[in-house]
Amino acid sequence: MNATFRSSTGFGILRRIESSRIFQGAVIAIILLSALAIGAKTYELSPWVEQTLGILDTGITVFFLVEILFRFTACEYKKRFFLDGWNLFDTIVVVGSLIPLDSAEAVLLGRLLRVFRVLRLVSVLPELRFLINSLLKAIPRMGYIALLMFIIFYIYGAIGSMLFAPVDEELWGDVAISMLTLFRVATFEDWTDVMYATMELYPLSWAYYLSFIFLTAFIFLNMMVGTILEVMSAENNARQAKAAHDERDRIAHQLDQVQQQLQLLSTQITEGRNLR
Amino acid sequence: MNATFRSSTGFGILRRIESSRIFQGAVIAIILLSALAIGAKTYELSPWVEQTLGILDTGITVFFLVEILFRFTACEYKKRFFLDGWNLFDTIVVVGSLIPLDSAEAVLLGRLLRVFRVLRLVSVLPELRFLINSLLKAIPRMGYIALLMFIIFYIYGAIGSMLFAPVDEELWGDVAISMLTLFRVATFEDWTDVMYATMELYPLSWAYYLSFIFLTAFIFLNMMVGTILEVMSAENNARQAKAAHDERDRIAHQLDQVQQQLQLLSTQITEGRNLR
Amino acid sequence: MNATFRSSTGFGILRRIESSRIFQGAVIAIILLSALAIGAKTYELSPWVEQTLGILDTGITVFFLVEILFRFTACEYKKRFFLDGWNLFDTIVVVGSLIPLDSAEAVLLGRLLRVFRVLRLVSVLPELRFLINSLLKAIPRMGYIALLMFIIFYIYGAIGSMLFAPVDEELWGDVAISMLTLFRVATFEDWTDVMYATMELYPLSWAYYLSFIFLTAFIFLNMMVGTILEVMSAENNARQAKAAHDERDRIAHQLDQVQQQLQLLSTQITEGRNLR
Amino acid sequence: MNATFRSSTGFGILRRIESSRIFQGAVIAIILLSALAIGAKTYELSPWVEQTLGILDTGITVFFLVEILFRFTACEYKKRFFLDGWNLFDTIVVVGSLIPLDSAEAVLLGRLLRVFRVLRLVSVLPELRFLINSLLKAIPRMGYIALLMFIIFYIYGAIGSMLFAPVDEELWGDVAISMLTLFRVATFEDWTDVMYATMELYPLSWAYYLSFIFLTAFIFLNMMVGTILEVMSAENNARQAKAAHDERDRIAHQLDQVQQQLQLLSTQITEGRNLR
Repeated sequence: MNATFRSSTGFGILRRIESSRIFQGAVIAIILLSALAIGAKTYELSPWVEQTLGILDTGITVFFLVEILFRFTACEYKKRFFLDGWNLFDTIVVVGSLIPLDSAEAVLLGRLLRVFRVLRLVSVLPELRFLINSLLKAIPRMGYIALLMFIIFYIYGAIGSMLFAPVDEELWGDVAISMLTLFRVATFEDWTDVMYATMELYPLSWAYYLSFIFLTAFIFLNMMVGTILEVMSAENNARQAKAAHDERDRIAHQLDQVQQQLQLLSTQITEGRNLR
Repeated sequence: MNATFRSSTGFGILRRIESSRIFQGAVIAIILLSALAIGAKTYELSPWVEQTLGILDTGITVFFLVEILFRFTACEYKKRFFLDGWNLFDTIVVVGSLIPLDSAEAVLLGRLLRVFRVLRLVSVLPELRFLINSLLKAIPRMGYIALLMFIIFYIYGAIGSMLFAPVDEELWGDVAISMLTLFRVATFEDWTDVMYATMELYPLSWAYYLSFIFLTAFIFLNMMVGTILEVMSAENNARQAKAAHDERDRIAHQLDQVQQQLQLLSTQITEGRNLR
Repeated sequence: MNATFRSSTGFGILRRIESSRIFQGAVIAIILLSALAIGAKTYELSPWVEQTLGILDTGITVFFLVEILFRFTACEYKKRFFLDGWNLFDTIVVVGSLIPLDSAEAVLLGRLLRVFRVLRLVSVLPELRFLINSLLKAIPRMGYIALLMFIIFYIYGAIGSMLFAPVDEELWGDVAISMLTLFRVATFEDWTDVMYATMELYPLSWAYYLSFIFLTAFIFLNMMVGTILEVMSAENNARQAKAAHDERDRIAHQLDQVQQQLQLLSTQITEGRNLR
Repeated sequence: MNATFRSSTGFGILRRIESSRIFQGAVIAIILLSALAIGAKTYELSPWVEQTLGILDTGITVFFLVEILFRFTACEYKKRFFLDGWNLFDTIVVVGSLIPLDSAEAVLLGRLLRVFRVLRLVSVLPELRFLINSLLKAIPRMGYIALLMFIIFYIYGAIGSMLFAPVDEELWGDVAISMLTLFRVATFEDWTDVMYATMELYPLSWAYYLSFIFLTAFIFLNMMVGTILEVMSAENNARQAKAAHDERDRIAHQLDQVQQQLQLLSTQITEGRNLR
């Protein structure tokens, strides 16, 4: 009854509008329009199209601003609004595109910030939001593997820059450049060119590259296997626990019945004796 | 008895012919012949071979037309014939190769359409049909991941075309070309050449490429793991549900017997008391 | 007792020698020596080393011949000897290296056949034999996927050679060359060079490459997932069946005891009644 | 009480210091500092920075020496100290960086050895230690696969150097160089260039490359699947055994109760008869 009362107040109306299909559809349409506008700007355009796009851009910015304020107003507990990562994300994207496009430098920055408005598609579509959440959950799992990989890259990078700097300053100049070169080797991108160059000075340097490739591939493979297993065992544990619980309940129930019947029998026998 | 009656009518005879091994084998042989003819046409050929191939092509087209009409006639419920995707597919392929090869332009189109006759091998072999069906089932599962990937490509493409267009118009000219270049980066194909070029203007642009590679590889990896898990858990659930059902049945049966025995005992005791 | 008797006969002695650790070790050592000799021949060598290798080669050939005859003699059932794939394989490899190295052409052929003697390491080490057997088991599973892949390559190859032959005769000359080029594209090896060349004539040909890459990658991914699942479900089924069987046995046993106790009770009650 | 007593002695104090968060943090900080110093040396530096780094390096070396002696003193059973692989590893890294940096050659060697100090991060962080241990456990599993791969590389390498040496001495000169070239082919790195070169002399040599790629990819794929399955079945077996044990306990307990009740009934009936 309280809910019915509330839904007839301003709050309720706002909420109903916010969660209506039409409103959601309009937001998605505007985001797609904004994405198309961003894409269009990367082409050579006639002046009047550019002007139209400018007006459209102002319109989209205003719409997004109104929409976020609307959602903020529709939210019952103001404090919790910014605790939700997606609301915070939306607010930053919208506020970011409020930067005026006056000076030459600000134009590029403003346009770059507008690009991220496409990301609002993620916060609007619940399926994508779920996907992102599940991807974020996978990050900590990979944290220590990433640290281990970084240590390996750092060691190989330091050795590489010590030994191969005279061969090619551009590829092995310092430890940072060497690590970039090693990342290139790890993606197999023209890695033999890099190797053949250093093999002229150090004929045994193929061992450096092969050991690096084997190490990174081996760790990557194990990471993948580990990730699959971890997620799977977590899933399986939950499912098996449920199945075990159901099974326990069922057998326990039937055994209870058996025990009750035995109890009854015992009573019958005692009664029979007492009757006599 | 009705079935026996039916099989002696025209329908039944057609059906028996259609599902006979010899008919199936003949269709497969003709498809392979058609595939070889298509392949042969890509070589330089002497005039009489070309003429033979032309006659062969007409023969194959007629055979396929007759075969599809035959199958249509053999089908009891005409309406359902086109509801089956494979029948529809076959009809389109066959009708497609009926286009006359007169004008110069139609020759190429006609030959292209003839290529798809090889696909009829899929609709004829039940194992391949099963394979394709299971592949099609995997598509919706990947839908939202594909959308997410597209958003990432679009954002990186827009940023790339804004920043790197002056470096190389051919690679970063507009958002579409940039996305093609990014796909090239995602396949590690000469991606360092692309990076080294932009690093001359923006020394920090390696961060753009590395973040892009990590994002796409990370999402791809998770997609793979997710796919494996989803299919697996679906399989497992079905199997476990069956196993649980069997187990329940078995235990329930034995407990039933125990309860019956208890019932009997109870009756015996009551009878014993009544007899007295 | 029969076995003890047999082992003291010629057969038994041969068998004991054949399965002794020393004999096995000697065979492995000779195979490794033979592999090193083959490898050594690919270097520039002084005449006396070449001569030594020639003598060594004759020695190894004779040893292998003696060893296979020995194993044939040690085998109790001559017919079964060649039914075992590994024995057949060994015999072919040994007989193959008996070809005389007189004429210039035979030298190369003889040396090529000698290379395969390294494969005897597989037939000697039981772990490798087991590995190869499990790899062979995986082949039929992949048969239809391979056929599907071939169909896709053939269709794209035929289309490619029809459209792109004027662009680059060397890459798209006929359907066979086109399929090789497509395999190159599938391995991402300089595929953009191939694409950029055809995009000059057909600006939309990127769709041809992207659809091909997606199709092959998608099928490959599903094949991998399918393989993992199939092997896994086979393993799981066997294990689950065993677990279910054990469980059934255990519960059935305890329920049997309960039923026996109930039987006893029933007898006691009946006796009690009869006594009265 | 003994433990309380011990912890107040020198040993106990050392141990408490060693396992304190502050000590661990200090060691990690020093390792990171040492890593940064190694990285910094790969850049061009002004003389006073180089001098500062030299002093820092001496300080780090002394700290690591003191730390390892400290840990050795804190260890109750001296013999066991070097039985732990991680302690041995730490000692070797520390002793290795004690080599004086006087002669020109020793400088490079000394600097290379200093690089491995970054690896001490692995021995200090328990999570990384756990990760490395689990990676080491995966090595034997891959041993025979690696041997099989080596045999395939050796056979193809020998064939390649026999046939293709006249085409390109640099790629196919001897069996070792050929195996390096084959590794390049296996990583798809400009493999078509290698193939096109040999196809001019041997037009059918594409079969050599394709069969090699299929073999290695097939074995690699199966190795991956095998690894996933092996780890998984080991995990699953342990978990299922536990679940089965719990289940057995639970059902056995309830059935015990039923049997006790039956025992009680039997006693009641016997007593009832005796009373009469």
